[in-house]
Amino acid sequence: MHTPALHWILTLVTVAVCCGTVQSQEAPQSEATEECLSCHAEVHPGIVGSWLRSRHATTTPEQAWQKGEQERRISTAEIDSSLRYVQVGCYECHSLNTDRHADAFEHNGYTINIVVSPDDCASCHVTEREQFAQNIMAHAHTNLVDNSLYRDFMAAVNSPYHYGDGALAMGTSDSLTEAESCLYCHGTRITVKGLAVRETDYDDYEFPVLEGWPNQGVGRINPDGSKGACSACHTRHDFSIETARKPYTCSECHKGPDVPAYKVYEVSKHGNIVSSHPDAIDFDAVPWTLGDDFTAPTCAVCHASLVVSPEGDVIAERSHRFNDRLAWRLFGVPYAHPHPVNADLRGIENAAGLPIATELDGTPVADAVIDADTQLQRRTTMKGICRGCHGTDWVDTHFRRLDNTIHRTNALTLAGTRIISDVWAAGIARGLPQNANIFDEDIERMWIDIWLFYANSTRFAAAMAGGGDYGVFANGRYQATQQLYRLMETYRLRKQLGAK
Amino acid sequence: MHTPALHWILTLVTVAVCCGTVQSQEAPQSEATEECLSCHAEVHPGIVGSWLRSRHATTTPEQAWQKGEQERRISTAEIDSSLRYVQVGCYECHSLNTDRHADAFEHNGYTINIVVSPDDCASCHVTEREQFAQNIMAHAHTNLVDNSLYRDFMAAVNSPYHYGDGALAMGTSDSLTEAESCLYCHGTRITVKGLAVRETDYDDYEFPVLEGWPNQGVGRINPDGSKGACSACHTRHDFSIETARKPYTCSECHKGPDVPAYKVYEVSKHGNIVSSHPDAIDFDAVPWTLGDDFTAPTCAVCHASLVVSPEGDVIAERSHRFNDRLAWRLFGVPYAHPHPVNADLRGIENAAGLPIATELDGTPVADAVIDADTQLQRRTTMKGICRGCHGTDWVDTHFRRLDNTIHRTNALTLAGTRIISDVWAAGIARGLPQNANIFDEDIERMWIDIWLFYANSTRFAAAMAGGGDYGVFANGRYQATQQLYRLMETYRLRKQLGAK
Amino acid sequence: MHTPALHWILTLVTVAVCCGTVQSQEAPQSEATEECLSCHAEVHPGIVGSWLRSRHATTTPEQAWQKGEQERRISTAEIDSSLRYVQVGCYECHSLNTDRHADAFEHNGYTINIVVSPDDCASCHVTEREQFAQNIMAHAHTNLVDNSLYRDFMAAVNSPYHYGDGALAMGTSDSLTEAESCLYCHGTRITVKGLAVRETDYDDYEFPVLEGWPNQGVGRINPDGSKGACSACHTRHDFSIETARKPYTCSECHKGPDVPAYKVYEVSKHGNIVSSHPDAIDFDAVPWTLGDDFTAPTCAVCHASLVVSPEGDVIAERSHRFNDRLAWRLFGVPYAHPHPVNADLRGIENAAGLPIATELDGTPVADAVIDADTQLQRRTTMKGICRGCHGTDWVDTHFRRLDNTIHRTNALTLAGTRIISDVWAAGIARGLPQNANIFDEDIERMWIDIWLFYANSTRFAAAMAGGGDYGVFANGRYQATQQLYRLMETYRLRKQLGAK
Repeated sequence: MHTPALHWILTLVTVAVCCGTVQSQEAPQSEATEECLSCHAEVHPGIVGSWLRSRHATTTPEQAWQKGEQERRISTAEIDSSLRYVQVGCYECHSLNTDRHADAFEHNGYTINIVVSPDDCASCHVTEREQFAQNIMAHAHTNLVDNSLYRDFMAAVNSPYHYGDGALAMGTSDSLTEAESCLYCHGTRITVKGLAVRETDYDDYEFPVLEGWPNQGVGRINPDGSKGACSACHTRHDFSIETARKPYTCSECHKGPDVPAYKVYEVSKHGNIVSSHPDAIDFDAVPWTLGDDFTAPTCAVCHASLVVSPEGDVIAERSHRFNDRLAWRLFGVPYAHPHPVNADLRGIENAAGLPIATELDGTPVADAVIDADTQLQRRTTMKGICRGCHGTDWVDTHFRRLDNTIHRTNALTLAGTRIISDVWAAGIARGLPQNANIFDEDIERMWIDIWLFYANSTRFAAAMAGGGDYGVFANGRYQATQQLYRLMETYRLRKQLGAK
Repeated sequence: MHTPALHWILTLVTVAVCCGTVQSQEAPQSEATEECLSCHAEVHPGIVGSWLRSRHATTTPEQAWQKGEQERRISTAEIDSSLRYVQVGCYECHSLNTDRHADAFEHNGYTINIVVSPDDCASCHVTEREQFAQNIMAHAHTNLVDNSLYRDFMAAVNSPYHYGDGALAMGTSDSLTEAESCLYCHGTRITVKGLAVRETDYDDYEFPVLEGWPNQGVGRINPDGSKGACSACHTRHDFSIETARKPYTCSECHKGPDVPAYKVYEVSKHGNIVSSHPDAIDFDAVPWTLGDDFTAPTCAVCHASLVVSPEGDVIAERSHRFNDRLAWRLFGVPYAHPHPVNADLRGIENAAGLPIATELDGTPVADAVIDADTQLQRRTTMKGICRGCHGTDWVDTHFRRLDNTIHRTNALTLAGTRIISDVWAAGIARGLPQNANIFDEDIERMWIDIWLFYANSTRFAAAMAGGGDYGVFANGRYQATQQLYRLMETYRLRKQLGAK
Repeated sequence: MHTPALHWILTLVTVAVCCGTVQSQEAPQSEATEECLSCHAEVHPGIVGSWLRSRHATTTPEQAWQKGEQERRISTAEIDSSLRYVQVGCYECHSLNTDRHADAFEHNGYTINIVVSPDDCASCHVTEREQFAQNIMAHAHTNLVDNSLYRDFMAAVNSPYHYGDGALAMGTSDSLTEAESCLYCHGTRITVKGLAVRETDYDDYEFPVLEGWPNQGVGRINPDGSKGACSACHTRHDFSIETARKPYTCSECHKGPDVPAYKVYEVSKHGNIVSSHPDAIDFDAVPWTLGDDFTAPTCAVCHASLVVSPEGDVIAERSHRFNDRLAWRLFGVPYAHPHPVNADLRGIENAAGLPIATELDGTPVADAVIDADTQLQRRTTMKGICRGCHGTDWVDTHFRRLDNTIHRTNALTLAGTRIISDVWAAGIARGLPQNANIFDEDIERMWIDIWLFYANSTRFAAAMAGGGDYGVFANGRYQATQQLYRLMETYRLRKQLGAK
């Protein structure tokens, strides 16, 4: 099994010959990476296969930098000379900033680390990294686990329960469960618990012992202290722009009833066009030219990509700070509200002392959310993309409908919140007045369903211009009103029973 | 930004050269369309890009008419000479029948209108337009909003609710909500509210002010008074037959729990074959040859397309009156029943005075539905398609199973209807005896779930020969019986409580 | 209509010419099959079209056998000479073992049968057939209908209900319903009810009258007494390995809330990679080379296929006894437990006399399930596949999380089971103590939902390393705890009401 990476070299040569290119000659491999591959091509043929078909394997940073500004896929010229003229291989990524990496270790004479972080990717993609740091997604871990209200929610959902003496008792959750549940998408905190020796096919080696690993959540806390995971969307080890532009990637975290973005997209006109004519779209083109490369958007078109007209005019700048195009926060909160000012939500507090950006009646906490001018500016950016295919009236009415739906779904949530407040006040369930967990009773879940699932789904259907049934019978207005009736009826019934 | 459409001309030339064809020379552009494109290619590159790859951009009606009868994609030779020898471009569609179009307006010296209607498309596709007028889908708007019972349903689902003094009060819905909810699929009524001047990148222009726009619902009421929207399935601006033949298109309106046709199809054998071998299907071929162009049906094969054998024998004629192949109406109603005689359902009344085609016990209203002979004739057409792949016994048993399931799910609905009738009679909920909305109480929704979701889903699974779990655990018989138990138990409980 | 199969012969010649091969000359057609096709190519062009593009139509068993051992797609050299040197055509499959086939009949001078069974496929694919016989799927029919507990479940779900005198009464299910419901996936029992004459386009013919047909369930009982249906996954009539390797095939039976494997896979990293880069995968290659043919698994990679490294080392042997790689049984039972020893589950009995492999508290029935060593061995096989792309720590932690989730979801089921046991003990519902059906009451369904849907979904999300929301808000831990609260609350309420 100790043969050199001959197989892969042959593969590269074959590729070069059969495609009539000399790419692999132009993108030489570093000695270090060659040494990595001499074992890992055999041990992990799957990820090496992915990497071999990647741009990283066939281009050097220097070549990438020589492209025109719009075509360029890297955002810094300040690339260390050791990286600049070679393939972006194993060693080039796994050896960066090892002094800051708690997971760094010695391996066959090299210092490398296991977890490649956004700060490492910033060696070439610095603008994207800086933008993503201000994307609410980069803070998905801390925004969740450092929020007392959401911690209560996590406890109610993830904890074990014991039944005895006619009552249910909640136990304490565990980190293995958390890593598979909320933190799968939000990201874990990866910590290093020392080193341990392990026998391998080649020799005994010492490896770091990691907790919270594996994980590719967007808000992952990395062993170098950074937040985020580029591989959440640019799936390893080809890290391709195509993958990130395909809606399937977004569906990994945005498909459930709490955030049914992908489901709505799938049955939207846009989704239908993309599904029906996949070969008519060039998912790799940079910049992405509307009308030439695609005629209907995937998630990335509206939320992230550099979109230009056939004349090369910029329709929307690339941004990994997706908030740039978002006027509202639609989901994950009781009431939709203007987008938060800061991506790091810690410190937000409403008048009732709760760590959320709205009051209990839905009024936004003024200094926590963006003002009307910023909302307008972001919407204008988004509308510019819509107008590549749609008339001004069309676009304006679309957003009037969306705003109306935000208003109306918030009003529905308010009706539910008033009921549950009466329920708590009457002591029928233990909630805010009792300083109790507000997510752990049957009647409380009826209230949560209204805003977390049905109001959300309705808003997503509005945001994507229809979305078929997701605004009506598929977790939409039908279910929202149904659950409102049920909440009301359950309250009435328990009041009646309690009165006896 | 005022450059001529040079980019697009170059694109067309490039396409012609690289493909070795002279199509664009054979399909000349009208001067009017050229003038449209001189601005709109820049303003709306997305839709112009779609159109450029369409048959409309590369064929003239005259060329289309020269095809053999089975290959032909237009259905009239009576084409105005101004349209006959040019591409079907912007002006050719947006300038038709302007005298009947309330949305017609003057624009740069041309009279055009915004909304292209089925009556406009009939200039070339007259047979399809006439058939579609008799398709129940063309009447989806009026069949819904002109039905007092469904209007109550819409009110219960779409209205705002206010909670105060321990009770919920229903408010009044609004047109922006309706357009995003039920009418997204059923179609809005588009009305013209005068003209307004708007500043554009080129000049100040006067445009019509439309209400109910945008919308592509199948039953849309257009500004020329016509009903329907061809673009619901033949998505703009390539209007391709491929799109309409892909199941994704149908999924836009037929995926929710009330009509899970796409979901069932996806997990059916047919759906699996199509998903697994997409490249083995020629989605563009006209006629559509079973065995050569495809070996498993999409929605269009069974419900719409001209299907022929490899010998050229017609297996099924093309029909845009989908009812032609449908013996039963399966969904959207409490009981499945023989298909309605007329696509326009207004005027139907049962013995209890309700505007539906069955009595409360499921008996069809005799003169509202097709007779047994017509059912047999439609089923025979459908069976002819099935028999292209399946033996006679196979096909006959399939339909025996479907009929049995229709009978059995109707019986389940009857059990639920008898319970809710007792509930109303006892005054536990306010329903038919009280002349109240029958869709706006917790216990009423339990009854509705049974027929609107679970009986429906079960029937769709039966209609598509299995459909995996949609007849059992995925909104099928499990949920139907569960909701029946819950309805029964809730009734029992509330009777017990009321007695005190 | 009695023309010879000229069309097909021409098609074959055309294919041969245009592809520059002489395959069809090398795979001659038997006279019998030629005679079949002389009518059936006209009568059933769809299935003949499928077959024409299949390997069966272009290869003889002799040619298939000449391949190298890893490339070989048949597993016996003991092939009858009448089959060995001709295409695998209509007659070659439909004429096998007719003496054992109750559905055998005379047709135009040949004895053939309608239903081709796994025992017939074993003529060439003997190893696969033998393995599949020991796959729990092959016993899906008998494991269901011969289990008294599951029979009660089927009765509750599939039976008609009548409401009268203020109560619901369960009727008796029927075989047409069963065939469309549970047995669509589990497989029907196909029996022969004599012969009947039917008029056809050609002549009057006598055909067997079959009950339970059509069906392609994996555990089908065939007219030759064998169990199973290869066409469940190798869809007729191309029976391709590509189809079986595509996840859509598995989705036919593994998508509902009771077994959401496909839904979880779709939103997993693996599913995303496959959906995003379908053209990067060679679904036809045998053996299946990790890194070359694919870089992310479909269902088949982990559960069935022969997977090799680029050097040709076997990573996992092909197995149609999927249990070979499964340490646990995750779904379809109240508690996940070590995989059963035997695929035929009849005879299993727990201490309480119930026909299931765990006690009511979740303890496995020791002699019914595999021991820890066997679990370890199966897991080691599975881990070997994971390690083709993932480090040892990654893989180990993944399985630690899965084991933890199995433990935790079982504990949640235990809490629910203790409540329902108290409910039964108190006579609030009629269950085990009353020897009553435990699946037919509102409160019982709350308990069933917990394990059948929500614990299951959570485990699938764990098994596929995340699965987005299916472990949290999409039928995961949120719904599991919600239903537990509801069960508790309903019990409390009914106790309170009963006490009056």
